[in-house]
Amino acid sequence: MQLGLIGLGRMGGNMADRIRAAGHEVVGFDHHPDKRDVSSLAELVEKLAAPRVVWTMVPAGDITESTIDQLSELLAEGDLIIDGGNSKFTDDRPRSERLAAKGIGYLDCGVSGGVWGSQNGYALMVGGTEADVAKAMPIFEALKPAGEFGFVHAGPVGAGHYTKMVHNGIEYGMMQAFAEGWELLEASEYVDNVPGAFKSWREGSVVKSWLLDLFDRALDGDPELGKLKGYAEDTGEGRWTVDEAVRLAVPLHVIAASLFTRFESRQPDSPAMKAVAALRQQFGGHAVVS
Amino acid sequence: MQLGLIGLGRMGGNMADRIRAAGHEVVGFDHHPDKRDVSSLAELVEKLAAPRVVWTMVPAGDITESTIDQLSELLAEGDLIIDGGNSKFTDDRPRSERLAAKGIGYLDCGVSGGVWGSQNGYALMVGGTEADVAKAMPIFEALKPAGEFGFVHAGPVGAGHYTKMVHNGIEYGMMQAFAEGWELLEASEYVDNVPGAFKSWREGSVVKSWLLDLFDRALDGDPELGKLKGYAEDTGEGRWTVDEAVRLAVPLHVIAASLFTRFESRQPDSPAMKAVAALRQQFGGHAVVS
Amino acid sequence: MQLGLIGLGRMGGNMADRIRAAGHEVVGFDHHPDKRDVSSLAELVEKLAAPRVVWTMVPAGDITESTIDQLSELLAEGDLIIDGGNSKFTDDRPRSERLAAKGIGYLDCGVSGGVWGSQNGYALMVGGTEADVAKAMPIFEALKPAGEFGFVHAGPVGAGHYTKMVHNGIEYGMMQAFAEGWELLEASEYVDNVPGAFKSWREGSVVKSWLLDLFDRALDGDPELGKLKGYAEDTGEGRWTVDEAVRLAVPLHVIAASLFTRFESRQPDSPAMKAVAALRQQFGGHAVVS
Amino acid sequence: MQLGLIGLGRMGGNMADRIRAAGHEVVGFDHHPDKRDVSSLAELVEKLAAPRVVWTMVPAGDITESTIDQLSELLAEGDLIIDGGNSKFTDDRPRSERLAAKGIGYLDCGVSGGVWGSQNGYALMVGGTEADVAKAMPIFEALKPAGEFGFVHAGPVGAGHYTKMVHNGIEYGMMQAFAEGWELLEASEYVDNVPGAFKSWREGSVVKSWLLDLFDRALDGDPELGKLKGYAEDTGEGRWTVDEAVRLAVPLHVIAASLFTRFESRQPDSPAMKAVAALRQQFGGHAVVS
Repeated sequence: MQLGLIGLGRMGGNMADRIRAAGHEVVGFDHHPDKRDVSSLAELVEKLAAPRVVWTMVPAGDITESTIDQLSELLAEGDLIIDGGNSKFTDDRPRSERLAAKGIGYLDCGVSGGVWGSQNGYALMVGGTEADVAKAMPIFEALKPAGEFGFVHAGPVGAGHYTKMVHNGIEYGMMQAFAEGWELLEASEYVDNVPGAFKSWREGSVVKSWLLDLFDRALDGDPELGKLKGYAEDTGEGRWTVDEAVRLAVPLHVIAASLFTRFESRQPDSPAMKAVAALRQQFGGHAVVS
Repeated sequence: MQLGLIGLGRMGGNMADRIRAAGHEVVGFDHHPDKRDVSSLAELVEKLAAPRVVWTMVPAGDITESTIDQLSELLAEGDLIIDGGNSKFTDDRPRSERLAAKGIGYLDCGVSGGVWGSQNGYALMVGGTEADVAKAMPIFEALKPAGEFGFVHAGPVGAGHYTKMVHNGIEYGMMQAFAEGWELLEASEYVDNVPGAFKSWREGSVVKSWLLDLFDRALDGDPELGKLKGYAEDTGEGRWTVDEAVRLAVPLHVIAASLFTRFESRQPDSPAMKAVAALRQQFGGHAVVS
Repeated sequence: MQLGLIGLGRMGGNMADRIRAAGHEVVGFDHHPDKRDVSSLAELVEKLAAPRVVWTMVPAGDITESTIDQLSELLAEGDLIIDGGNSKFTDDRPRSERLAAKGIGYLDCGVSGGVWGSQNGYALMVGGTEADVAKAMPIFEALKPAGEFGFVHAGPVGAGHYTKMVHNGIEYGMMQAFAEGWELLEASEYVDNVPGAFKSWREGSVVKSWLLDLFDRALDGDPELGKLKGYAEDTGEGRWTVDEAVRLAVPLHVIAASLFTRFESRQPDSPAMKAVAALRQQFGGHAVVS
Repeated sequence: MQLGLIGLGRMGGNMADRIRAAGHEVVGFDHHPDKRDVSSLAELVEKLAAPRVVWTMVPAGDITESTIDQLSELLAEGDLIIDGGNSKFTDDRPRSERLAAKGIGYLDCGVSGGVWGSQNGYALMVGGTEADVAKAMPIFEALKPAGEFGFVHAGPVGAGHYTKMVHNGIEYGMMQAFAEGWELLEASEYVDNVPGAFKSWREGSVVKSWLLDLFDRALDGDPELGKLKGYAEDTGEGRWTVDEAVRLAVPLHVIAASLFTRFESRQPDSPAMKAVAALRQQFGGHAVVS
């Protein structure tokens, strides 16, 4: 089938390749002139036969919102938009209602797999109606890994991005668990071969996982991670997960702590610990570092 | 080669099968009369040709300690004991020194893989000398999964159990991350198909892992886990990991929180939260549940 | 001076007493007929000489919002509304702008002190303009404790409720710290006289505090807190504090954990720990409680 | 009465002053020649009439242990040693048994109050027999604050240091709660007058406490704490509290997190966050800081 694909960056570009490799036609647009098949959204829409399916893979927030607004002017009743970016789940329902008013369908699709998805397939988490999912199914089939896993129709509009958000929250916790274990092993005088320990766990152990495979790969290139700073960004999903925990009264000790350690990693000095130092100085006359 | 194996329970029995399947001879002893090949440790030692290798796979603590003490009376210079139980790493060095005084070698071997190890192979983490590791290598080869992973000689005596301890600490964190994500998805009104979401992640996603495969398996049989109580034991390694974090000044937010939630799961009522309730009642006249 | 006071419940009723005791005239309205001085907001406004000051002390959210909307129809240019309830800080600016369009001033005032405020004075945290604060200062003076503390003009509109929110976040952390310490002392075999320990700390110790005084009072009446359930509500401010931590990338390990333990205290069974139990059963064949 | 006091540093020196001010005779020894009344432990013992009471106020660990060992050679049956230092509670029972073999009594006394104790009185938490407590009671009366609080006989030997340990654990949590609240207020655009907010809470608020008074004092001298580094030592009791939580299966989310943030404050770079950065780079091609 035909697919319009907007956003041909690291994720979108790889996805286009994988979809084409499965025998589909991709008409791609990007704001970078050298990557794209068409030079405008209008041209993209023109090249597609109705009913059209257009996938947006651009940064979440204003860019996604304005891209979809523009598309909604160009598309026609019976067409379908799929947002595969990292939009917040609360954006999906209002967006789908605006599109529905014009007869345009909408699916939100959380996409996991990172730079490896092109080769391994992408895990897809989709929200929307059965009918809309059915229309796009050949594309989902092309993107997902072979076999029975890697795709879920999680619920109505919003469920796809919500599921992806929680997926990333879990990912934060798993990464932090590995990170803490690595720090402890490195700190201890008991274990000589820390990279070997992580490598060994790749088969037979309970912590066997793709993140472990990747960590082993990182240690292969830099056994003590001496080339890196202990600095980690966060990308929205972790924060929204904690916000949802607060809204729904769900205790997320581990996921919240994993988010907070990322915040800490970006502070040149900790304000809170200045306050602790100030208190220790006040009551105990404890020496402080200044 | 020949191996004496003491402890033929869930773990030890499966391991005996896997070692035999690799062509080795196992002489097994257990306190249950119906499982064992010999009826005493003395008989076990007699059946093995020197230099002997004897593997203990009995509950950590007093039982392991007394088993090894008895063996040390029966074995001779040049023999080797491997403790594959969940002993605390601090027990290993004193134990190896007592054995060394009699010329008996000692390896500590952390074993991961649970009830699946028999089929998938066990992840083995070993501490001891190169020479002792070499003596037991055919057995390790038989137990570990095929391929390059699943075995590490992590360092001197103690390093094996230490590595296993940290492995389990990481496991606690990963399990809690999945558990929190599942609770949030179940609590939310956005996602209809929570088991489907977990199943989908088994390929293509960043959280792809053996624990996820097992969780999917659990949800297949009981989609809302309605047959279970929210009650989890802990088995020593999690506690020791936190103790080590304290000793080495390593911040383990996630692993400690994962341990604490297990403690909480076993409390019929939370004493701490009684104290919070008491305070709220005192300052705010807030209604309390009694 | 004259004050219109809307809401004569536990907090508002006590405040009216304290304001009157300081020599001011309070015209009180409540939806309960037996407590009030006037039977409608219109009557309340009529009884006050312009420029009027009206204080709302009703439940945060819709009730506060509709009360202020009604007042804005009844008041005139130059009048002033003070919201002393637990409104969310994000409500204050839009509200003040709506009022400003009619020439009505607005102050948000966080009020701490609970049922003791009537006797000890209330801690007041105020947001708004200097001019509006000056108009209401006699009332603030009446409500606050004697002496130099107990009142802050924290910033523009919103700053009062924001400061109160953070105050409550800190309070959550302090309560949890006492609660954890109490649980540990009660669990230990080392200390016989736990209530005596808490009582002793009331003077001379580093943890000397009003919360400690209250906790001692609670233990006086119920030394093992046997009359209470370990169940604690949360009242909005704790949740908003964590939301703000997420928005501003501030790591609030302790305050978030204190909130999460309250969530846990209200769960008859922990979903997350069911998931942990399920995983333990799957990989280890560990016995589970069902 | 007479008291031998060993250790005349910041704590011990102030305590000597307070005991003398209450009309008792203090014979002080210190390794610094200019502070002491006697030049050896032998001379100290000689100057005291039997039955003697000797208080040790020297660094916990080897110095305390060897001081008490020396004293045990010099003292006689019926004498009493009180350890007021920050010894670990597990040291107390073996120590008291060694002394009991010579007929020497032993009390462990946790002392709180820091540099302010001289003026405000010290909070004392004592473990030992009723008879030994009675012997030393005049000294305890001199040291504690006036009034009904500030002293507890918490239980048998060990209970004093145990109670002090938990007191400090609670203190860690309270300090971290204030620190987090301060960081959030400083980070927010809503509040202009952060030092004023903290000052205002000193009366009327729920967080009213001595730590708050001290924090206000710190902000008076340095309103943004710009003179301090976010660096905090820990002094043993926090770590032992977490170890006890682990031993007794008590969930101490807040106290453990408060300890971990101190550990973090002393790390020039976070190893764990290097691991997180490595993982993000591996799966997402995310830019990292190096």
